[in-house]
Amino acid sequence: MEDSACSNASKWVSVSFARDSASIGESIQIRGWVRTRRDSKGGFSFIEVNDGSCLGNLQVIADASLPNYSSEISSLSVGSSIVVSGVVKASEGQGQSRELAAASVELVGLAPNDFPLQKKRHSFEKLREWAHLRPRTNAFGAVTRVRNRLSFSVHQFFQEEGFNYVNTPIITASDCEGAGQMFRVTTLPLDNLPTKNGKVDHEKDFFGKPAFLTVSGQLEAEIYATSMGKCYTFGPTFRAENSNTSRHLSEFWMIEPEAAFFELPDNMLLAERFIKRLLTDVLGDCSEDMQFFEERVQPGILDALRMVMNKPFEHMTYTEAVDILTASGEKFEFPVNWGADLQAEHERYLTEKHICGPLILYNYPKSIKPFYMRCNDDGRTVAAMDVLVPHVGEIVGGSQREERLPVLLERMREMNLDEKEYWWYIELRKYGSVPHSGFGLGFERVVQWVTGMTNIRDCIPFPRTPGSAEF
Amino acid sequence: MEDSACSNASKWVSVSFARDSASIGESIQIRGWVRTRRDSKGGFSFIEVNDGSCLGNLQVIADASLPNYSSEISSLSVGSSIVVSGVVKASEGQGQSRELAAASVELVGLAPNDFPLQKKRHSFEKLREWAHLRPRTNAFGAVTRVRNRLSFSVHQFFQEEGFNYVNTPIITASDCEGAGQMFRVTTLPLDNLPTKNGKVDHEKDFFGKPAFLTVSGQLEAEIYATSMGKCYTFGPTFRAENSNTSRHLSEFWMIEPEAAFFELPDNMLLAERFIKRLLTDVLGDCSEDMQFFEERVQPGILDALRMVMNKPFEHMTYTEAVDILTASGEKFEFPVNWGADLQAEHERYLTEKHICGPLILYNYPKSIKPFYMRCNDDGRTVAAMDVLVPHVGEIVGGSQREERLPVLLERMREMNLDEKEYWWYIELRKYGSVPHSGFGLGFERVVQWVTGMTNIRDCIPFPRTPGSAEF
Repeated sequence: MEDSACSNASKWVSVSFARDSASIGESIQIRGWVRTRRDSKGGFSFIEVNDGSCLGNLQVIADASLPNYSSEISSLSVGSSIVVSGVVKASEGQGQSRELAAASVELVGLAPNDFPLQKKRHSFEKLREWAHLRPRTNAFGAVTRVRNRLSFSVHQFFQEEGFNYVNTPIITASDCEGAGQMFRVTTLPLDNLPTKNGKVDHEKDFFGKPAFLTVSGQLEAEIYATSMGKCYTFGPTFRAENSNTSRHLSEFWMIEPEAAFFELPDNMLLAERFIKRLLTDVLGDCSEDMQFFEERVQPGILDALRMVMNKPFEHMTYTEAVDILTASGEKFEFPVNWGADLQAEHERYLTEKHICGPLILYNYPKSIKPFYMRCNDDGRTVAAMDVLVPHVGEIVGGSQREERLPVLLERMREMNLDEKEYWWYIELRKYGSVPHSGFGLGFERVVQWVTGMTNIRDCIPFPRTPGSAEF
Repeated sequence: MEDSACSNASKWVSVSFARDSASIGESIQIRGWVRTRRDSKGGFSFIEVNDGSCLGNLQVIADASLPNYSSEISSLSVGSSIVVSGVVKASEGQGQSRELAAASVELVGLAPNDFPLQKKRHSFEKLREWAHLRPRTNAFGAVTRVRNRLSFSVHQFFQEEGFNYVNTPIITASDCEGAGQMFRVTTLPLDNLPTKNGKVDHEKDFFGKPAFLTVSGQLEAEIYATSMGKCYTFGPTFRAENSNTSRHLSEFWMIEPEAAFFELPDNMLLAERFIKRLLTDVLGDCSEDMQFFEERVQPGILDALRMVMNKPFEHMTYTEAVDILTASGEKFEFPVNWGADLQAEHERYLTEKHICGPLILYNYPKSIKPFYMRCNDDGRTVAAMDVLVPHVGEIVGGSQREERLPVLLERMREMNLDEKEYWWYIELRKYGSVPHSGFGLGFERVVQWVTGMTNIRDCIPFPRTPGSAEF
């Protein structure tokens, strides 16, 4: 750092380091943004500085004897960037374990008084319009750090379990799964489309045919499971549905593990280990941020997460669930019928009132599930599973895949799928087929669950929703 | 695993575990695919089994006394999936440290004789047509494992350096950087486009205006650098250019760190630490795979990588480079002129003949660089940097960003950029601006460099190129 104009003899450390680890008496330098400033009658100022490394600020004591005290420090505005050098001291103030006695305070960039993030609180809706500034708030700083920790935890878990990270394609020429409406990807000029026999000539498009944004990497992940043994994806997926809810995004990140020689029970155990690992890491390593969510966003969230972390996941077949719901005597808005998908109210009854904990439902009616799920011997269910947690509902959906070529082909015929479109998927069953299983987990749903944030648009840096692709 | 039909009393372990760590005499089970089978006159068969966990196979000895020897084992075809239980023994064969004396060999899925990956070698071009099977080959298994290790190394490095992983948007409504041609993302029906005043009505599109696939997350990453301090992206980016070369993909993964209070020298040191960390991890943890690339793909690659890992990166200004090239007396195809971009031949001369090692060129003419790079005091260069390595060329491109609002606005005017489009980018300079820097690294270029693979299409599971979006 010798060449850097920002630095000098003091060692640049993060606010997190200065607050948690710096020994008292050490000479350090911090670089960050002013969160508040108040001036004491005693001839000095308290400046709270944050640099994004943690939720809390480091309090800087700037004495009036500093050469730029009256010209700069005493008028330092919220949002300004500064570099402070000084000595760490034990704090005399409440709730502060360390403070920095400034030997110098260098103003780097002023924030004029129209800086939107003044001390007044803003609604999360308003902050969405300022997506370029909202990570400078406590809430979005905390979401960013928790999201970061969860992301790394995903990789750590699967790497330690021997899974290979695989990047499945974002642009795909086939709507293989039919999981949802897709975005078209094109380089054709919309105001001057090439035509052939009076119709749009898709052969002139970039890939020689219509191409779309992926809705899932599962089918491609099966390629890698049936060669590398275990793999996982963690990448963006897309839904062109016009869903304006607090739980839907048009662009979201999904995690999809897939493992050869895993049958449904193995898949269930993997999902349980995975979820517990995420919670263990975030509760262990983000305690200050999680305390913020407990106090300011969703009281009770810590206990709710600890319960899921500590309690074994119960397993229940769809058929058992229907029996329990039917016998419950509860008044549901939607009727409970074997063969119909369970509604959120049914899932909530099961996890919140019947089991009072995390629950894996499995063996769903084949009529409501995709073609690739493995048919059970009863002829009417498939080896599907959903992981449900109290107050949130489904957090994971997965299945054992149909590995038997004749059964797969029959299912595809039943569902009028074109075998030619799926030639490579079918060949995985032709050449050394193996039982295999996997699941999907929407990453923003996990961030939303763990932080207790009400709207999923606040759980991703730049949310894409119908009518909105700002930033 | 008690419920799993695949399992029995023996412990399921990976081939990697069985070859490297299993103690002789232990009862284990492996699950994988037959790579070869040969039958001995002595009344037994040698079966080489691979499960993707490592390059090498485990040799299974199946004795003719096994009940299914004549019905199944003696005709086991290449590509078939099997589950083998037995006891690990020291091998008597050459080059095998362990072998598995089979107590049982269960055939899971046969591969008919038209399985394409017979022992005969196939060209990488041919294997691209079989992207669903190619990870079952030695080369693509090795590429997958090396790519996986590099991916995790990226995360480990930046997490340890205190960077937050940030997901910048994939779909974007602005071509902010102008870094390349973009794919349009639309839900408008191409054969029945809505119009308004005789023109395509883009307001009817999903996001209410034209939207595209991102070419870079840098500008959005700057948002997170100027709030969280340090961040990095690792996600897909897109180029709709009609480039059919061995170094171009239409969809590729990019890593873009961005850090507040980092000036160009800090950025250079970060890039050097990062590249050395990637090489250290892959050479240390993928030695069997890397030995394969050394022997079968690019002899000399190990020494070339070790050299970059061990040698300090030299720094040289663009102007110095032009002087050296001009004085070199070399015959170049393209002339060397101050103000023109350096060509691959120039970069190769510098790294391979002049420096004989990794080189960071910096301070490029501002006329050939984007608007966001920081203007140097000389008035004609910007604080850009490119990291060059011998035999590959540019592996990293980055810069310090212009943090001074008036200078940025002047640059934008010079380049006829619309300030309204960049309102939020400009506001980052208005509210507590800080010096900051970052760089970009194309992940597949790194995989290509490290493995020595000739074509970048073999460095990503499902390559997208003009005319091709298969799988």
